[in-house]
Amino acid sequence: MTGFDTLWAELEPIGRHASTGGYRRYAYDQAELECREWFTSTAQARGLDVEVDRNGNLWAWWIPPGVSAEAPALVIGSHLDSVPDGGAFDGPLGVVSSFAALDAARGGGLAPVGPIAVVAFADEEGARFGIACAGSRLMTGQLHPDKARALVGRDGATMAEAMDAVGHDSSGLGRDDERMARIAMYVELHVEQGRSLIDQQASVGVATSIWPHGRYRFTFRGVADHAGTTRMEDRHDPMIAFARTVLSADASARLSESRATFGRLEVEPNGTNAIPSVVRAWLDARARDQGVLDEMLERITADAASGALANGTQVDVTAESVSGILEFDEDLRDRLARLIASEQGVDTIPVLPTGAGHDAGILSAAGIHTAMIFVRNPTGVSHSPHEHAERDDCLAGVEALTAVLREFA
Amino acid sequence: MTGFDTLWAELEPIGRHASTGGYRRYAYDQAELECREWFTSTAQARGLDVEVDRNGNLWAWWIPPGVSAEAPALVIGSHLDSVPDGGAFDGPLGVVSSFAALDAARGGGLAPVGPIAVVAFADEEGARFGIACAGSRLMTGQLHPDKARALVGRDGATMAEAMDAVGHDSSGLGRDDERMARIAMYVELHVEQGRSLIDQQASVGVATSIWPHGRYRFTFRGVADHAGTTRMEDRHDPMIAFARTVLSADASARLSESRATFGRLEVEPNGTNAIPSVVRAWLDARARDQGVLDEMLERITADAASGALANGTQVDVTAESVSGILEFDEDLRDRLARLIASEQGVDTIPVLPTGAGHDAGILSAAGIHTAMIFVRNPTGVSHSPHEHAERDDCLAGVEALTAVLREFA
Repeated sequence: MTGFDTLWAELEPIGRHASTGGYRRYAYDQAELECREWFTSTAQARGLDVEVDRNGNLWAWWIPPGVSAEAPALVIGSHLDSVPDGGAFDGPLGVVSSFAALDAARGGGLAPVGPIAVVAFADEEGARFGIACAGSRLMTGQLHPDKARALVGRDGATMAEAMDAVGHDSSGLGRDDERMARIAMYVELHVEQGRSLIDQQASVGVATSIWPHGRYRFTFRGVADHAGTTRMEDRHDPMIAFARTVLSADASARLSESRATFGRLEVEPNGTNAIPSVVRAWLDARARDQGVLDEMLERITADAASGALANGTQVDVTAESVSGILEFDEDLRDRLARLIASEQGVDTIPVLPTGAGHDAGILSAAGIHTAMIFVRNPTGVSHSPHEHAERDDCLAGVEALTAVLREFA
Repeated sequence: MTGFDTLWAELEPIGRHASTGGYRRYAYDQAELECREWFTSTAQARGLDVEVDRNGNLWAWWIPPGVSAEAPALVIGSHLDSVPDGGAFDGPLGVVSSFAALDAARGGGLAPVGPIAVVAFADEEGARFGIACAGSRLMTGQLHPDKARALVGRDGATMAEAMDAVGHDSSGLGRDDERMARIAMYVELHVEQGRSLIDQQASVGVATSIWPHGRYRFTFRGVADHAGTTRMEDRHDPMIAFARTVLSADASARLSESRATFGRLEVEPNGTNAIPSVVRAWLDARARDQGVLDEMLERITADAASGALANGTQVDVTAESVSGILEFDEDLRDRLARLIASEQGVDTIPVLPTGAGHDAGILSAAGIHTAMIFVRNPTGVSHSPHEHAERDDCLAGVEALTAVLREFA
């Protein structure tokens, strides 16, 4: 059993839901606090200095004797929180692999020129408060602290209240220039959330870009009425236009090899014998570039409008968040790919884009040198208990991160 | 201002939601209790004996001197509770009209041979506990008291707990033969939930039948996955088959002049960036006869199954409740129609079927002589704040009920 196995086994039971097998680790809730305690005790057992920054992100610092704490630091890590009933790997694999890689590098006699930190960014999934990468967005000034404090979570408490409840002073939230200036480079390791590495038969790969991404709220409004007595031709049922829009989104995304998903819905009054007055549906849309994304959204919006027109209902579309394409530093990406390929004794490893947002994307957008390593997922599935990574691939990920430490630290 | 106007004005503000204008009067909640207090004080002001039966139904008895309390009684009324954000008329119009008709008949010197009661059946809409006509079903033995007590409401409390909370002893629930034996006839007045009386330009009409009706739970199961990273062709998204099924239900119902509605939905995990694992949707289906209903359901179920097959998801269909057609007593219906027509000085008034269930249907199925009077609804809309009845039509309804009292009491 390697250090990776031990660390993985310690973290694995925390926040796993007995009936679904999925994880429920939401920012500042009980399960996530237990993950934080695991992070702290893991770091302390290694003699690392643990620090919670103003924005709730966790840092474990190794500053060997003779190394200046002020020198530019190499940071590796990921996050610990999950989506509702998510998998075990999305986030934790990067944190566990970072500790294991640091152990391996130190065991191999690494003498870094600057500090090394393992980080666990807070609230990456946004499962509780609705905004993804809240911890890294706050740190880099991409989320205003007033807006963050006022975000209302699924349980009705605001982010400020949730922080207060666990003793974190939310008055300190906000851009942290001093900390950003200390980060020479951030490398995030993450389980792949797709099938590229399966198709290319590779254990690990390196990220090229994060697709542009939007979340759009479609509000279909009709007239509530009695389901038993209202003739079909007299109805203004917003569920019909919603259904047409779901099929339009599916077809449009297939056509352009993009992604379009209606995964979240609210229906009013949501009664079995009532024609709905409102169907509120959130579209998650992503594509390889902005032009393709815009064109797909136009098509879906037009189909929603004509679907609504057909039975006298209405639809409004509001963009809740839109992120442009994020291209990771090309030189760093190529250097990392060559380094890992050489470590593995192969000619090359895959470079691939991702449709998912990551803290690494937030840091990159803030001008920090950033790269991502992906580990193969044999199911191709993530945000689900089916998400997986084989042990050998995990160990290949640790070796890749270890090589990064040796090369860049 | 007539007695009707005064009674209506007293009841109208209770449980009306300020922002929607709709009513929220759910069994044994605060607003419904205020309606019950209104019923009690209205009855007491008229010297009627108020009684809450074992099943929570409210009765106001007029037993004039010289009339035996044991003699067969004529009962008129309806219910006081509402669907979520329902209209003002569905239920309360019948109760208010019954008190107004009794006032008019007594003012006109009515000397009945038996008792007269105004009834408000409990929990007709089933908005809190999911089973419509719970009060009349319990009284007639069509709902088992154990099952009723264990029903879990939207707020998590069981019916037994909700009754306890308002001091109603739920151990007495169940079939009430003694009470049923006392009812010589039940006539329910109700706002029309459709457009027949508009089309036939009539203030009031009489019911012929209640359409057969089923509630079916469609459970679409797929695989939760990341909305940003999972290629469209790798997905098992149950929302797609659900959307196809909504359109199939709409088309099938139009084809057979029936009704099919998906008005209630639950999505898991219901996250913006997660492909759903489960979409649970309730179909409310009704048709003019059982054959048409069965054929429509077969078509919708087949389309759901083929929609699911197309992307490797599954669908299960469970009938939650199915009621056969209910034909009201034909002789009584015709006698009532002639009586009201003669009262109005016209040749005939409309007789019409209804797609909605009613306590009158429950009592009729239990072998009690039952009839229904409908009052025109100028919007044709019900279960919505748009539901309406003009004052003149309401007064025509009161006159029709008054004629019933004079003829049958």
